[in-house]
Amino acid sequence: MKKLEEYVVSIPDYPEKGIIFRDVTSILEDPEGLQLSIRELQDKLEGMDFNIVIGPESRGFIFGMPIAYNLQKAFVPIRKKGKLPCETASIKYDLEYGSAEIEIHKRSIKPGDKVVIVDDLMATGGTAEAMIKLIEGLGGEVVEVLCLIELMGLKGREKLKGYKVDSVIQYPGN
Amino acid sequence: MKKLEEYVVSIPDYPEKGIIFRDVTSILEDPEGLQLSIRELQDKLEGMDFNIVIGPESRGFIFGMPIAYNLQKAFVPIRKKGKLPCETASIKYDLEYGSAEIEIHKRSIKPGDKVVIVDDLMATGGTAEAMIKLIEGLGGEVVEVLCLIELMGLKGREKLKGYKVDSVIQYPGN
Repeated sequence: MKKLEEYVVSIPDYPEKGIIFRDVTSILEDPEGLQLSIRELQDKLEGMDFNIVIGPESRGFIFGMPIAYNLQKAFVPIRKKGKLPCETASIKYDLEYGSAEIEIHKRSIKPGDKVVIVDDLMATGGTAEAMIKLIEGLGGEVVEVLCLIELMGLKGREKLKGYKVDSVIQYPGN
Repeated sequence: MKKLEEYVVSIPDYPEKGIIFRDVTSILEDPEGLQLSIRELQDKLEGMDFNIVIGPESRGFIFGMPIAYNLQKAFVPIRKKGKLPCETASIKYDLEYGSAEIEIHKRSIKPGDKVVIVDDLMATGGTAEAMIKLIEGLGGEVVEVLCLIELMGLKGREKLKGYKVDSVIQYPGN
């Protein structure tokens, strides 16, 4: 059987020179790759106590929703600024170039909620750190940050010290 | 048991006066609403012969992916311009104000593929029409356009004449 890593298409120098882009859409366009990706993510959550899956727009939606469905949890999206219609909490954070602002519906997280964040890829951990602040600001507890792919060279885990971080595929560089 | 419609939060005059925004995130933040939404969408596909689920960025990802997982199909995203890393086909289409451009990876659709398009909401059908052109341009066949919510007053079905269109919740107006 083909391994999950073998489904990933790696594109050198995209979107800019020196960066290897890891394309996860190539996993999903094969039904067996899709099954494998969701199952291997889900295996990492075995025995975990939580009630909400959070996925950031937009590739976090792809991997977060099937897991929420399969494990009968709630799904709460975190979106780019201006996309959520009800009252939101928002946070601005720095990117390598410029900054980003993300939002969550305030009503979606209550004190005592236990949250797993699911995303396709962790690089520097900047987005995950911002999401944790949003969730904790509403009284939620982040019990795990789970990614399909982790770029170990960018040391996201160091930024998220004190939190459980897990991933299915690890690449040594960036 | 609560009906799916009862989970939808309707926001009058959002994003502008005269429009009632139908918020689907309120369905997903209740585990039972989430289960119901996916199951009722899936029921509409019973007996259909297809091999690919296509979801447009970004709420199409939310509903398309669990269906692709459950029915063991491929999932192919259609994204806004500039987000897909490999060779794409793209199409520009008119919105009420301005225009939009969407893309698909060329490699993802082959002649003979049978595609179901899944999205959260159908309004005028403009995005669905553009997606159909993209898919057919690569030799795929669109066997169904399936939405969770349909705004009947905007007559999307008329624009998509000749195609099978289905939805779980219908609102009479816009």
